[in-house]
Amino acid sequence: MSDYAAPLRDLRFVLYDVFDAPAQWARLPALAEQVDRDTADAILDEAARLSGSLVAPLSRAGDEQGAQFANGQVTTPDGFRAAWNTYAEGGWVGLGGAPAFGGMGMPKALGVACDEMLYAADSSFALYSALTTGACLAIEAHASETLKQRFLPPMYAGRWAGAMGLTEPHAGSDLGLIRTRAEADEDGLWRLHGTKIFITGGEQDLTENIIHLVLARLPDAPPGPRGISLFLVPKRWVDEQGAVGEANGVVCGAIEHKMGIKASATCVMHFEGARGYLVGEPHRGLAAMFTMMNYERLSIGIQGLGCAERSYQQAVAYARERRQGRAPGSAGPDPLLVHGDVRRMLLTMRAYTEGGRALACLVGQQLDLSRYSEHAEERDQAAAFVALLTPVAKAFFTDTGLESCVHGQQVLGGHGYIREAGQEQWVRDVRIAQIYEGTNGIQALDLLGRKVLADGGAVMAQWCDRMAGWIEGGGQPQQAAVREALTRLEHVTAWLLTQRDDAELINGVAVDYLHLFAHVLYGALWLRMASVAEQQPQNPFCQAKCATAAFYLARLLPRTLSLDAAIRSGRAPLYGVPPDMF
Amino acid sequence: MSDYAAPLRDLRFVLYDVFDAPAQWARLPALAEQVDRDTADAILDEAARLSGSLVAPLSRAGDEQGAQFANGQVTTPDGFRAAWNTYAEGGWVGLGGAPAFGGMGMPKALGVACDEMLYAADSSFALYSALTTGACLAIEAHASETLKQRFLPPMYAGRWAGAMGLTEPHAGSDLGLIRTRAEADEDGLWRLHGTKIFITGGEQDLTENIIHLVLARLPDAPPGPRGISLFLVPKRWVDEQGAVGEANGVVCGAIEHKMGIKASATCVMHFEGARGYLVGEPHRGLAAMFTMMNYERLSIGIQGLGCAERSYQQAVAYARERRQGRAPGSAGPDPLLVHGDVRRMLLTMRAYTEGGRALACLVGQQLDLSRYSEHAEERDQAAAFVALLTPVAKAFFTDTGLESCVHGQQVLGGHGYIREAGQEQWVRDVRIAQIYEGTNGIQALDLLGRKVLADGGAVMAQWCDRMAGWIEGGGQPQQAAVREALTRLEHVTAWLLTQRDDAELINGVAVDYLHLFAHVLYGALWLRMASVAEQQPQNPFCQAKCATAAFYLARLLPRTLSLDAAIRSGRAPLYGVPPDMF
Repeated sequence: MSDYAAPLRDLRFVLYDVFDAPAQWARLPALAEQVDRDTADAILDEAARLSGSLVAPLSRAGDEQGAQFANGQVTTPDGFRAAWNTYAEGGWVGLGGAPAFGGMGMPKALGVACDEMLYAADSSFALYSALTTGACLAIEAHASETLKQRFLPPMYAGRWAGAMGLTEPHAGSDLGLIRTRAEADEDGLWRLHGTKIFITGGEQDLTENIIHLVLARLPDAPPGPRGISLFLVPKRWVDEQGAVGEANGVVCGAIEHKMGIKASATCVMHFEGARGYLVGEPHRGLAAMFTMMNYERLSIGIQGLGCAERSYQQAVAYARERRQGRAPGSAGPDPLLVHGDVRRMLLTMRAYTEGGRALACLVGQQLDLSRYSEHAEERDQAAAFVALLTPVAKAFFTDTGLESCVHGQQVLGGHGYIREAGQEQWVRDVRIAQIYEGTNGIQALDLLGRKVLADGGAVMAQWCDRMAGWIEGGGQPQQAAVREALTRLEHVTAWLLTQRDDAELINGVAVDYLHLFAHVLYGALWLRMASVAEQQPQNPFCQAKCATAAFYLARLLPRTLSLDAAIRSGRAPLYGVPPDMF
Repeated sequence: MSDYAAPLRDLRFVLYDVFDAPAQWARLPALAEQVDRDTADAILDEAARLSGSLVAPLSRAGDEQGAQFANGQVTTPDGFRAAWNTYAEGGWVGLGGAPAFGGMGMPKALGVACDEMLYAADSSFALYSALTTGACLAIEAHASETLKQRFLPPMYAGRWAGAMGLTEPHAGSDLGLIRTRAEADEDGLWRLHGTKIFITGGEQDLTENIIHLVLARLPDAPPGPRGISLFLVPKRWVDEQGAVGEANGVVCGAIEHKMGIKASATCVMHFEGARGYLVGEPHRGLAAMFTMMNYERLSIGIQGLGCAERSYQQAVAYARERRQGRAPGSAGPDPLLVHGDVRRMLLTMRAYTEGGRALACLVGQQLDLSRYSEHAEERDQAAAFVALLTPVAKAFFTDTGLESCVHGQQVLGGHGYIREAGQEQWVRDVRIAQIYEGTNGIQALDLLGRKVLADGGAVMAQWCDRMAGWIEGGGQPQQAAVREALTRLEHVTAWLLTQRDDAELINGVAVDYLHLFAHVLYGALWLRMASVAEQQPQNPFCQAKCATAAFYLARLLPRTLSLDAAIRSGRAPLYGVPPDMF
């Protein structure tokens, strides 16, 4: 039994009708070998089946049971191990991995769809996979050929998992402060000493080994973020033939008791002289880790979409069935769906989730271009767009993900607050996505400081041109409203460029700026989606798509007005209260 | 040990400096006998002491342990019973109760301050008291003299508690659907048959008796909301001398497992031929219950303020202590408080909480006028304002309460997601306040439909005049912005009056309208508070007050722009998606 049915119709609409992904695949040789529309369809169907019938039924019990910790061992909830085995045997961990190391080489534009389905089915379960995939990416990009050959195939096969060791008790958002140290060992290896916290999947009972990517300092490291190196540290040592051997001094000290994602083991990890390999250049670990973090950031953004979709489906089912009050002229009681306020909540969820689904596919396509294009200029352009859009996707998918899940819970009234009804779990599960992988405040600073202002607004201007193209191509009556909102964004960006040296101001308006940008971007995407849907005016799916676009443009796009005004109020309102009066 | 210190300085600022409550008390004879500033000060100090040192230390363990249910009995968490006894012996349950029946006769303007402190200390604990006080109010307003004399004194003394039996499995927001029935019994009594759900404090181990106020249908009742009567049904029968006797067929069948307020027992209650008294007129029970519900609605709103204040205090403490990143020009690491985005979150919490505190006091004063004024015209005017403002207080305090607690949690980063750190509990606890006592969507409909449009906007226009007075009296540079926002509110109200027959539109814009009204109202209140604080320009508290006003007006008041635009988009965007395409 499952209360989740993957939104295949909409996923296909985005992938095929809006962004014509098969055409992109056909012109990129590395992808053309691997995938066409038929293959993609088969993958989407199978991912839908697995997420709906294998994983989604585990989520409620998994939340109640949670990951358990005793004697250094983590036990995942009942059913997780069997489901993991099925999932791993299907090759899903290596969906986007390089075929040379056993991956399936599938495009990210398809991968984001599969990610969404898995997060919707269960965020905790999805994390075990997402961390592994992210670790593989960092290994693929920065490790030696030997390490790649030794570690990637069993990780893509899901026999081994991955974990990221960044945070320490005193070093969260500020990774420059980390203290874990690496000492030289024989054979060019290193021994790591230190403690990491909040390590998702740092220990679990799903796989025979766990490959930790750990940030630590070499003995001669300069202080701060430029003195951090990246290490590959297996839980159990792996010999040159790839055989798993003895324990390697990687010890789980505890797991956290959290608000949600309770089936995901969030571990305190002690590295007690654990042996590891240096990955990439000394002192360049933070940059290498960012390969993984950018991937994870998009993935965590998609957690927001998945939770919101799950919540939406449950809320709609309830709104159809539950009868309270009446429609004008009816004797009642009528289904909740007749009430304007219930529609407002459901349409808000829908407009943000479907808009986010389109943006996720778009970022996926740019990632594919940046990786597989044969033209350096196209690769660079796509990489710059990925850099611009990733913090938006991470933060905005998860901020609207919380807003959506709160609406979904609200539709159920009192029943939404009862654990048994399921809906409150999505609020608790999605909440972490605004925090981990860089808080949404950090994402916003990354966007405004590094991606928009640092290059004088150049990439942002290019992106605005692209949005302008979609707006002009969308013939809806609301076109003018989106054009105005885009102008607002361009003007406020130009003004912020004149203020770029005021770090306190930039810090204090970054979140509002990210939301402003995202609302304009969704406006452009909704116009583009509506212009595609309009071509089939008799098709009910397309009618609903156009109607949801109209809702977004009428009810949600106006948020750009208040965000713009708030940003323009500048630095003074933030710094008037003296620190000791807080 | 407690992490909560009641915001006494600010409570006094609002009560004395902004609203000069002692002057109002002095001119209302019933209050003049009971209270002056010295008495009020003593009460505030003692409430602060009890909430900080007696109740607040119970909240974390109370959340983990929760209320337990076995064999029809509820057990509250360790320490609750002892704390309740101390609280009850202090006379706090009867703080606002009529002196003729053992109450302390204190004004509601003072009561709201005590309510806030208790909710901040622990929402679950506060609910046991709030439901009792609310039940007493309904009894005082509608029951016979005999019943008042029998039931009120032990309830005010906290020896007996109260509970509200409204919701049934199929009847939540739509109370017209309830099925619990009353059969005539001997001596003019009634026997009740039926099941109620979501009954806060329906069973507990704090008091020797529980007095249930229950909605049920008489045998000859017409269908719908005009066929509902109110009954007083004790858990244990009470004889004419007030002695507690045998069990009365009021049986707790289960308690709910909830997202939060876990120490509050949310009960399924079976009335198995339980004997009870009719309270008020037959078939007029809903109106009688509203006496209690309006009181509870303000109280539940204040839960939002209390949780937000608790979250704020914890977030500020963390932001002072935790060092990550650096201020411009500093070597760092510096406290989080230097970061603009952290200030944005803390100031948002503060601006909404302090604005809400002022509104709570204002509503309290209007309640006092409506109850104690010797002039019928003043009583009626105040009652009309109470009716207008209560749904705003309930919904907006709790909507901004959730937003605030989410910000507070976000300030703690990953630590905010860990149960041990405490912060995530306020998010879970405050969330219910948007749902129960009438969802915030119901509050918004009540505001827009019944309170604003039904009288042609007359009371709203009077209230706008009052706000205009505060705006003109506030000499800040931002005065013009609030004046504009008020004009926006007046214009959109006038437009909605022309659309009042479009029930679907009204339903679909009501929440945005409530938020628009509330943001304008807070703008006026912030101007008023700033104009008072400006009189002491050297006082750091007053400097911070003015700076928080500036933040509110610059960063939060602009939300009126987008709310106005969203409302004006009308009905069409809500009803474009056909029901079967959701």
